[in-house]
Amino acid sequence: MPDPTSRAVREGNYNVDPGVQFWATPPVHGCLVDEVIHPAAYTFKLPDNLSFAEGALIEPFSVGMYAATKAGIKPGDVAAVVGAGTIGIMTAIAARAGGASTVFISDVLPQKLALLDGLEGIVTVDATKEDLGERVRAETGGWGPQVVFEATGAAPAYKKLWEMPAPGGRIVLVGMPVDPVPFDIATAQSRGISLETVFRYANVYQKAIDLAATDGVDLSRFVSETFAFDDSVQAFERFLEGRPTDVKIQIAL
Amino acid sequence: MPDPTSRAVREGNYNVDPGVQFWATPPVHGCLVDEVIHPAAYTFKLPDNLSFAEGALIEPFSVGMYAATKAGIKPGDVAAVVGAGTIGIMTAIAARAGGASTVFISDVLPQKLALLDGLEGIVTVDATKEDLGERVRAETGGWGPQVVFEATGAAPAYKKLWEMPAPGGRIVLVGMPVDPVPFDIATAQSRGISLETVFRYANVYQKAIDLAATDGVDLSRFVSETFAFDDSVQAFERFLEGRPTDVKIQIAL
Amino acid sequence: MPDPTSRAVREGNYNVDPGVQFWATPPVHGCLVDEVIHPAAYTFKLPDNLSFAEGALIEPFSVGMYAATKAGIKPGDVAAVVGAGTIGIMTAIAARAGGASTVFISDVLPQKLALLDGLEGIVTVDATKEDLGERVRAETGGWGPQVVFEATGAAPAYKKLWEMPAPGGRIVLVGMPVDPVPFDIATAQSRGISLETVFRYANVYQKAIDLAATDGVDLSRFVSETFAFDDSVQAFERFLEGRPTDVKIQIAL
Amino acid sequence: MPDPTSRAVREGNYNVDPGVQFWATPPVHGCLVDEVIHPAAYTFKLPDNLSFAEGALIEPFSVGMYAATKAGIKPGDVAAVVGAGTIGIMTAIAARAGGASTVFISDVLPQKLALLDGLEGIVTVDATKEDLGERVRAETGGWGPQVVFEATGAAPAYKKLWEMPAPGGRIVLVGMPVDPVPFDIATAQSRGISLETVFRYANVYQKAIDLAATDGVDLSRFVSETFAFDDSVQAFERFLEGRPTDVKIQIAL
Repeated sequence: MPDPTSRAVREGNYNVDPGVQFWATPPVHGCLVDEVIHPAAYTFKLPDNLSFAEGALIEPFSVGMYAATKAGIKPGDVAAVVGAGTIGIMTAIAARAGGASTVFISDVLPQKLALLDGLEGIVTVDATKEDLGERVRAETGGWGPQVVFEATGAAPAYKKLWEMPAPGGRIVLVGMPVDPVPFDIATAQSRGISLETVFRYANVYQKAIDLAATDGVDLSRFVSETFAFDDSVQAFERFLEGRPTDVKIQIAL
Repeated sequence: MPDPTSRAVREGNYNVDPGVQFWATPPVHGCLVDEVIHPAAYTFKLPDNLSFAEGALIEPFSVGMYAATKAGIKPGDVAAVVGAGTIGIMTAIAARAGGASTVFISDVLPQKLALLDGLEGIVTVDATKEDLGERVRAETGGWGPQVVFEATGAAPAYKKLWEMPAPGGRIVLVGMPVDPVPFDIATAQSRGISLETVFRYANVYQKAIDLAATDGVDLSRFVSETFAFDDSVQAFERFLEGRPTDVKIQIAL
Repeated sequence: MPDPTSRAVREGNYNVDPGVQFWATPPVHGCLVDEVIHPAAYTFKLPDNLSFAEGALIEPFSVGMYAATKAGIKPGDVAAVVGAGTIGIMTAIAARAGGASTVFISDVLPQKLALLDGLEGIVTVDATKEDLGERVRAETGGWGPQVVFEATGAAPAYKKLWEMPAPGGRIVLVGMPVDPVPFDIATAQSRGISLETVFRYANVYQKAIDLAATDGVDLSRFVSETFAFDDSVQAFERFLEGRPTDVKIQIAL
Repeated sequence: MPDPTSRAVREGNYNVDPGVQFWATPPVHGCLVDEVIHPAAYTFKLPDNLSFAEGALIEPFSVGMYAATKAGIKPGDVAAVVGAGTIGIMTAIAARAGGASTVFISDVLPQKLALLDGLEGIVTVDATKEDLGERVRAETGGWGPQVVFEATGAAPAYKKLWEMPAPGGRIVLVGMPVDPVPFDIATAQSRGISLETVFRYANVYQKAIDLAATDGVDLSRFVSETFAFDDSVQAFERFLEGRPTDVKIQIAL
């Protein structure tokens, strides 16, 4: 929750308000309590055709939605996503539903890419066998993707990132690397690239719900397992296993 | 074809280059000849999964694509289209494929709206029974559509246009009225509306083809009838009938 | 003052928040009282080199600043302003200080234009003798202004407005006509024009103060007359005279 | 000169056309010949109040203009420029003339900063004594500059770059470092920063000339020395000295 009178809020960027409180980030411990009081302005109603499980996925989907919004996708643009973790997957789905004709997404773990099997307009690229940039250029007459999302935050992913977008294209930095990464500015300049950074999200929750409620977006497939409330400890233990194919673990009430 | 050295072309707006030649606009008579020589830069290859019939629909679809591009749709925006003629239909499809969560489209002729039956994310509104603006507000908690496309060019359609978008929203003027229309500037100002105008298209052909090739977009349903080449005269006569449900008449070669 | 938790505020458009209260608009009677309590978030400190008289002009200047901001002026753009009333003048100064190389401004009253005499980069055009659009085209090799501000709200001013901008240019509607005006959409379309509307202002007060504090902007010349507090009634009577050259009447405390 | 039918040109980005030929970049040897034939579309007429010396500075000024354009400066924004070399100086002047209220510019060489002495709205910061970011924050109530230009290309300059802009601000990368530089993505993300890259320029020459012709911009002070044509060899030798205060050496014809 941002401070509603701060300058960042007035300018429409409440996510970067230095005074924002996030209910999952220290010093706030999350919402595992019986009752919470939350401002109506930042509370949203789920439509009837979305389950609570899908509702729980609206939060990570909103990060993807915010990334897709900042990308400034034009209808029919070709997009590329580096990394098929939860955020990469959510970004790919948001980019496709948000106007991209095709989204190419790569990962080094084939089982993560398999989570996207059968989704129309999403092409998976096994990064251990194929270079994402080369693949997209091959399928776009050498031009490349107008929009590239970096969703790993892993140092090696940045090596070929700066040359990937089409001339005049855009890189959206979603992954959050712990340390600074080498930035090949000269390459980015020669292609006239712009870059956007993503930090949580702002003004996309309602739109995330609206898109999630369409047939084109099916978040339910990413609920990896549902635990009964009495098995909550098991749910957290499962989360700590860090299975590569786990996107969201739900605890049903 | 624009003059490639003109100022409008250098600035990326080749559609408004005063020197542009359009192959369907006087003094150019169209392409009903055996052979044409056309610059490679403005010629595009159809992918294998698009028929020539769908290819013929890429031209009107490109108007819709250009309108959707100028609308600056953000992923999950709600859109409204006034008028379900060929251009209105193409705009609705481009807006939905281009990132809108729902596109509401109205017309006074139910048989035109019926052409869109069953398309996911497109809601038809019979303008003889229901007000488009009121309907969208009712379904968006009173907020209204972020983007409104005017696609009739008919004087009465502009009466309620200026109050239709959500605060900070956008009107895209696609229809081309013969005479000036009354513009309620004060209403538009009080809602902080911006407006874009559409004249043909620029830089969208490849993207139109890419989206038309996805499963989400099916242009083939809008080929109203196909005539053999020997029946070309009949095809033109059919066109002159002006049937409300005719979107595209194809002559097969 | 907007409702800080409203949707319009969260999206950064607090000026079009339907719940906004404006301290000069019914039902609020203005601030002619001994003491007011105003939220700190919407209160600004004047720097030492601005007088209270200039401070009083920050409000109308902010309308010009918001217009210039919405215009999306690119450095060196040529601008045109229709009407040299208080808002037209403030818009011309904001546009020039905001990046335009030259601002052409027209009015039918030469004494209003005379208020701008000697200001660098501002060219006055007597609308009774010369057409604003023709003049700008003549001085820009036929291209026209990239940005046009309408600042009269008077019906006749709209007649030639739609053809005035350069191809791909923008019209900013600042003046607020009482009745709808005829909008020549076809002309605007053939030139690829976009339009923005202005309603008060948002997020520009600090920037208005910063520019007003530069040598390039001198608002003090627009304080037409200063009255002592005991002569306040005279000040209001003077205002009611509606002298064409009166921009701001100050009451000193 | 770009290939006028290329895709980059059609999209308005002729500077990143891979086929562009630049008349100072191998394999083209420059224009030190008696006569050149140059396409009219990329040739501009100097107005009477600009000397040929100032005309010679339009080229580097255009880089600054393109940087200021890509910065998307809003009227009254505060800007910061890292580095007062030729390009840094030209960028600072373009940013100030292009709408910034104040431009703070830093360098480690005081004699370079001295070249800007007395220019209104430009504040020099000696980087050996003071941190640019801290200085701007101190003068903007802790908020920072909305726009930051990096104009050195020197590795140490990037260390504090990512934290410098105000929340939601923009970094424009003008300097071209030889090697990749460390990019602190997490810091840029937490402030919601966007980045633009600059490579030469596109569509700004006429606007550069128009601004250079105003009183607010005086490029003539940056002609460091003028040599007669017969002393051309001396002129090149002077250039090779690399004096820190040399901005442009002119050879008069």
